[in-house]
Amino acid sequence: MEGEVSESERSALSLFFEPQSVAVVGSLREGYFGGYVVIKTLLNAGFEGRIYPVNPSYQEVLGLKAYPSIKEIPEKIDLVLIMINRRFVPNVLRECAGKGIKAVIVVADGFAERDEEGAKLQNEIVEIARKAGIRIIGPNTAGIVNSANGLTPDPYEPGYKKVKSGTVAICAQTGMINPQAFPYADLHYGVSKICDFGNKCDVDECDLLEYLENDPATKVITMYLESIRDGRRFLEISKRVAAQKPVLILKSGRTKEGAKVSASHTGALAVDDQIFNAACKQAGIIRLEKFRELFELPKIFSLQPLPKGNRLGMVTFTGGVGVLAIDEGAKYGLSVARLSPEITKKLNAIFPDLGKSVVDIGPPMAVNNYMTIYSEILKTVLEDGTIDCLFNVIWTSPFEDFVKEYVKFYKEMQGYDQKTIATWIYGPSIPLINALSSRMEDLGFPVFSDLEIAIKALGIAYQYSNRKKGEE
Amino acid sequence: MEGEVSESERSALSLFFEPQSVAVVGSLREGYFGGYVVIKTLLNAGFEGRIYPVNPSYQEVLGLKAYPSIKEIPEKIDLVLIMINRRFVPNVLRECAGKGIKAVIVVADGFAERDEEGAKLQNEIVEIARKAGIRIIGPNTAGIVNSANGLTPDPYEPGYKKVKSGTVAICAQTGMINPQAFPYADLHYGVSKICDFGNKCDVDECDLLEYLENDPATKVITMYLESIRDGRRFLEISKRVAAQKPVLILKSGRTKEGAKVSASHTGALAVDDQIFNAACKQAGIIRLEKFRELFELPKIFSLQPLPKGNRLGMVTFTGGVGVLAIDEGAKYGLSVARLSPEITKKLNAIFPDLGKSVVDIGPPMAVNNYMTIYSEILKTVLEDGTIDCLFNVIWTSPFEDFVKEYVKFYKEMQGYDQKTIATWIYGPSIPLINALSSRMEDLGFPVFSDLEIAIKALGIAYQYSNRKKGEE
Repeated sequence: MEGEVSESERSALSLFFEPQSVAVVGSLREGYFGGYVVIKTLLNAGFEGRIYPVNPSYQEVLGLKAYPSIKEIPEKIDLVLIMINRRFVPNVLRECAGKGIKAVIVVADGFAERDEEGAKLQNEIVEIARKAGIRIIGPNTAGIVNSANGLTPDPYEPGYKKVKSGTVAICAQTGMINPQAFPYADLHYGVSKICDFGNKCDVDECDLLEYLENDPATKVITMYLESIRDGRRFLEISKRVAAQKPVLILKSGRTKEGAKVSASHTGALAVDDQIFNAACKQAGIIRLEKFRELFELPKIFSLQPLPKGNRLGMVTFTGGVGVLAIDEGAKYGLSVARLSPEITKKLNAIFPDLGKSVVDIGPPMAVNNYMTIYSEILKTVLEDGTIDCLFNVIWTSPFEDFVKEYVKFYKEMQGYDQKTIATWIYGPSIPLINALSSRMEDLGFPVFSDLEIAIKALGIAYQYSNRKKGEE
Repeated sequence: MEGEVSESERSALSLFFEPQSVAVVGSLREGYFGGYVVIKTLLNAGFEGRIYPVNPSYQEVLGLKAYPSIKEIPEKIDLVLIMINRRFVPNVLRECAGKGIKAVIVVADGFAERDEEGAKLQNEIVEIARKAGIRIIGPNTAGIVNSANGLTPDPYEPGYKKVKSGTVAICAQTGMINPQAFPYADLHYGVSKICDFGNKCDVDECDLLEYLENDPATKVITMYLESIRDGRRFLEISKRVAAQKPVLILKSGRTKEGAKVSASHTGALAVDDQIFNAACKQAGIIRLEKFRELFELPKIFSLQPLPKGNRLGMVTFTGGVGVLAIDEGAKYGLSVARLSPEITKKLNAIFPDLGKSVVDIGPPMAVNNYMTIYSEILKTVLEDGTIDCLFNVIWTSPFEDFVKEYVKFYKEMQGYDQKTIATWIYGPSIPLINALSSRMEDLGFPVFSDLEIAIKALGIAYQYSNRKKGEE
């Protein structure tokens, strides 16, 4: 695995995400988990390739012919998913080798993360794979997703049809990012690829970075890691990739106790946290701090243009929110934009006392033609040349009419200005907040669950943009 | 305002929260904001006292007789809400003085937070009030709430009937905590009192702390502050109160820029952040970092017993979540509990390989009698004497059946053990996550929106408990 990846290895990763045919080896009994679920989910998501169930006890499942073993499938297979007892995995892998298969996802668990016997079995499958030129994702993985072709071989039932297509690639050393774990449907979160590395016995963060570097569907990469397999290679590749696409990484095992448990559950050695931090700085990786950030922060890169500078404009409800935003922005080098005299005058003409750094739309809320005033305010603030990015607070109110009017207005705003906008929506009704958030993200305006995370989104976008400028 | 509060001042605060009669001075036109909304909301929430609309243009509103002015109301008034143009506020206040009224909420804005004229008007109303022994909340406030008697005089429409009764008191120098701004109904968040200080021209954080100290309905106090009116008094009172009830404070204006804007929008001077930090440590105040924490963290004190020590048990999905939890717990002095040999053995008998510090219930999820296994696991882990608090992760799954079974199980668990439990629920469906969260909180198990905030809840509960031990 050392050094450069060869062309054949790169195409092996394409086999994982763009297979023409998938064989699923495992239980075909109906239930919450297993081969049956995988096949059902692939069919639901409209997977475009051929699907071959493999199980000697079945003739047919969900309208598809089942085969007793891999070797008895008469056609060419691009990708195999293995979900059987760990003891039988080496044999199935040998069959894969015999059939010239190059990409295998081992969902089965009980390998290096469990015990010594599992560690031995893991070594055995790695050896078989290397000899045969097979690439493995896993073992102990919940699999991968390609939203473009319906490849969603999740071994757990997600309960919804499709992961929405978008430009964010998510990779993690955990299944907590897969469709069964995250409400991709409810949040209108747009994904290009998902990959759970599992125990990372072969395909690792570097392989994925290289693959995603050349994936036109991916605009931003977000990763959760517990370990780095090859520090030197990681530094080299991530630096190259981060110069082209933002790379966001959440790394756990920061503390001694955390690192110890991490090593025990994936069988991988953790890297010293200070060294990793230094590497991130050198490579231009954006380091995340919380699990939620893994899903939320990429949206700013996925949906909005990069800010040209650090001047933060604010349209908020209440001055208090403005003050919290300013405090938070300072952490990332954002500074309060001073509105130009011209724009200040315009704002004060729209409503008394509006022309301040923190444009508080609380008072206009109390008047009856609020939506007209709101539209004017937002357009006026965005017109101002003194602003690079905007923290945009929306109060949903308990009335559905407001949601409709906001949506109408933000439709108009698409492409109105090239400033970076991060929105936070609050209000008395969670269903209305969710409804408006989804609609706004469909229109290209990312909505964040916290005021602090919205500011952080603007902050890291500014820092990334600033670094890119320095590199040019 | 210096020194001890007299008995009469204390009872003045009772007049705000437990009035027998409320007069509402302001516009009675239907709309999103104003006196009409206040009266409608009071009626909806089942306010137990008498309500007097005051407006010379109306005879009646919502079935209530309207009066042309305060002085013409024939009965005794405990509390007056003023929602009129700032220019007329001093006159109404003089009328209040004439009628012997002792408690006034000035919702009207445009005072010290706006301009010099407003600052002068604010001084004028303070002077009138002092002479007449009137206490004022505001100006520039969205008011107060007492969930016990239906007192919800919110000038904005909240869109739901009632703020759920509970033991958390929330006070803030912003209306962002009031019913129109926060989904109290959707989140099943239980509140005793709410108070928006507004510009804090009179009633301030110290007054509220003293009132809540003696309020049997309040078990925990959470505050958002931008300024402290009297540092010495604050230190003295908060120390006394924090020894009895947890006091959680989010303070903004931490940065120079933030403090400057803060001063401009409430007209109050900000306190140096390092001094405030030192005061919090001395007084035993729990200092918060994010807006979300204001609402979420009090739940651990409101619903769960204090932990007896710092040993953190974990029942999670995936080891990765366990590692993130351990890293986070270290920040608050929580350390990983080592399960006893007896409990380890029991867990391994329930399911292979379960008996670890991080009990990963991912693998049992794949089997069919999952809920039975889950119940056994949780009870067994809680049995262990080596655990003081538990980080409890639940996967909702996309199936409603699961939600029902979880609810059934947690009903059994009420009072099962005196360990502190913080729960994080994740899964593929937001509606199911919300449904299960609400039900669990009704049963006394607080649910947190993030894994990190769940850990922080356990961490601050441990720290508070530890400090109390030291004081005994």
